[in-house]
Amino acid sequence: MRVLVAGGAGFIGSHLVDRLLRRTDLDDLTVVDNFWTGRRANLHHIADPRVRIIESDVERLADLGQFDEIYHLASPASPPWYMAEPIRTIRANVLGALRLLDALRPGGLFGFTSTSEVYGDPHVTPQPESYRGSVDCTGPRSSYDESKRCVEAMLFEARRVNRVRIKVVRLFNVFGPRTRPDDGRAVSNFITQGLRKQPITIYGDGLQTRSWGYVDDIVDGLARFFWLQPSEYPGPLNMGNDREISVIDVARYVQRSFPDSAIVHLPPAPQDPTNRRPDLTLAYRTLPGWSCAVPYEVGVDRAIAWFRANEHSFIADADGYLPPAPVLGSA
Amino acid sequence: MRVLVAGGAGFIGSHLVDRLLRRTDLDDLTVVDNFWTGRRANLHHIADPRVRIIESDVERLADLGQFDEIYHLASPASPPWYMAEPIRTIRANVLGALRLLDALRPGGLFGFTSTSEVYGDPHVTPQPESYRGSVDCTGPRSSYDESKRCVEAMLFEARRVNRVRIKVVRLFNVFGPRTRPDDGRAVSNFITQGLRKQPITIYGDGLQTRSWGYVDDIVDGLARFFWLQPSEYPGPLNMGNDREISVIDVARYVQRSFPDSAIVHLPPAPQDPTNRRPDLTLAYRTLPGWSCAVPYEVGVDRAIAWFRANEHSFIADADGYLPPAPVLGSA
Repeated sequence: MRVLVAGGAGFIGSHLVDRLLRRTDLDDLTVVDNFWTGRRANLHHIADPRVRIIESDVERLADLGQFDEIYHLASPASPPWYMAEPIRTIRANVLGALRLLDALRPGGLFGFTSTSEVYGDPHVTPQPESYRGSVDCTGPRSSYDESKRCVEAMLFEARRVNRVRIKVVRLFNVFGPRTRPDDGRAVSNFITQGLRKQPITIYGDGLQTRSWGYVDDIVDGLARFFWLQPSEYPGPLNMGNDREISVIDVARYVQRSFPDSAIVHLPPAPQDPTNRRPDLTLAYRTLPGWSCAVPYEVGVDRAIAWFRANEHSFIADADGYLPPAPVLGSA
Repeated sequence: MRVLVAGGAGFIGSHLVDRLLRRTDLDDLTVVDNFWTGRRANLHHIADPRVRIIESDVERLADLGQFDEIYHLASPASPPWYMAEPIRTIRANVLGALRLLDALRPGGLFGFTSTSEVYGDPHVTPQPESYRGSVDCTGPRSSYDESKRCVEAMLFEARRVNRVRIKVVRLFNVFGPRTRPDDGRAVSNFITQGLRKQPITIYGDGLQTRSWGYVDDIVDGLARFFWLQPSEYPGPLNMGNDREISVIDVARYVQRSFPDSAIVHLPPAPQDPTNRRPDLTLAYRTLPGWSCAVPYEVGVDRAIAWFRANEHSFIADADGYLPPAPVLGSA
């Protein structure tokens, strides 16, 4: 059983790697990452002889033979990152998917982490998978949103025409340990600002809402959908926490741990969605037993503890720690 | 002045080539086509020493140096064609655009024919460019719709980040001479069926509407937008006829020329949009003097005359004439 994770050094990818290594049926696990937004530090704890780490752009991956399961998570997911390099983002997603389809053995499984961004700034709440979305395909978030939509199209058409086995998940906001300190999204921004005794900055009035899924719950859902539970449902499947919380409420909760940091408001981020909440009906039906079990406050406390414990490594490590890009920052 | 047209042997591409050859400032014109849906016969009339025809997939185009203007029309545009080869369709559009961006000289112009399909099955009529659309990114039309959306995203982001000069047009339904007889869309289907004394087949009740733009008017609009009129407006710009006509009315009009052919109804095509009509406010403001001047009936009569005159070539020519694929046929 040969498995490949593209983007396996990333925030979510590295947690997925940890889950995969619990499997006894797995013979080798190839992690592909170009360390653009992934970090070597996210894999430092792994000492499993089944793991091989390949430093490569996913779309330029060398021929490594064929794999039984391929999980494509290779993409930046935070607005300041993909807005700074939009063409590279499209290449990672779309060309990456084409390259990986070539590496899938006949009958193998292709798992893809799509995004709630396919819904854009939704006119329907909560968002069911059938909602077609409201994405400005010429807007500043479009490199991410449209390349994820295009890969969904590619995979569902590969399934229809070529009978490729696919599983497509639409991830809503995820937070927790291994988020880059310079990720640029709300929870990690607020925590790193608190640690540095800087003001906690909110883009706009902070009344925009998100559903904040703690990474352990989300990756548990991925493991169930991708290999633990015997469903051939191809998706798309929403995955996230359906408890909707405003950005300002997150800031206030984080601030309780950093009372020296004042909350300040900056201009709104471009095309920042006003709301986002998953309709989880299909997820609960497809994955009995799964739910987001970690309360939001517990998750934030764990994230703060992780950031405190790892703060020393952020500047020193080899990943080239960058300060958050405040102008483009967004939730 | 070096100009490249990708998809230049296609229905619209070959008409665009004719317009480009009217230009006296043009030194050489490179036509790239893989003759998938393009036809050699569409270029047979050209005997201009400035023209060079390269047979190649656009995404695999060899290094031909840099071009001052590039027009990317390399994609099938008819549902039975792109639904039969969806991954190839995505490759032509998305990888094609990436390849062509590499061939554009700094400061050069990139023109792209996007589509009204970015609006999907619209909830707003007529559709202004600001409408974000209603596309099922997992549906059977998604390879075309989503790859066009993804290329729009790529180009607008290349403009924002890299200052690439772009002009993006969203074409509504176009018909006229040089449509493939096996194109599979309504007007050409009805005419070829009439010529063969076969029944005229309509998918569904025929009450779905389209705006039918005659190719001369549409290509006149492209020429004005791309090079004739001095605007740097990047688009997206709707281009089409805003006179909305139902498919059944088209069938009845064509039937007047082929009274032996009865109109019959087949099951609806999958996810066939119920309506489609351009809001042309922006087009009229951007391109003063332009309009769809050819009445629909005149255009259909001209198309019938062209099909009659060229019928003998369809089976004999080297392009591999295929019968229409009725199950997937669609307007």
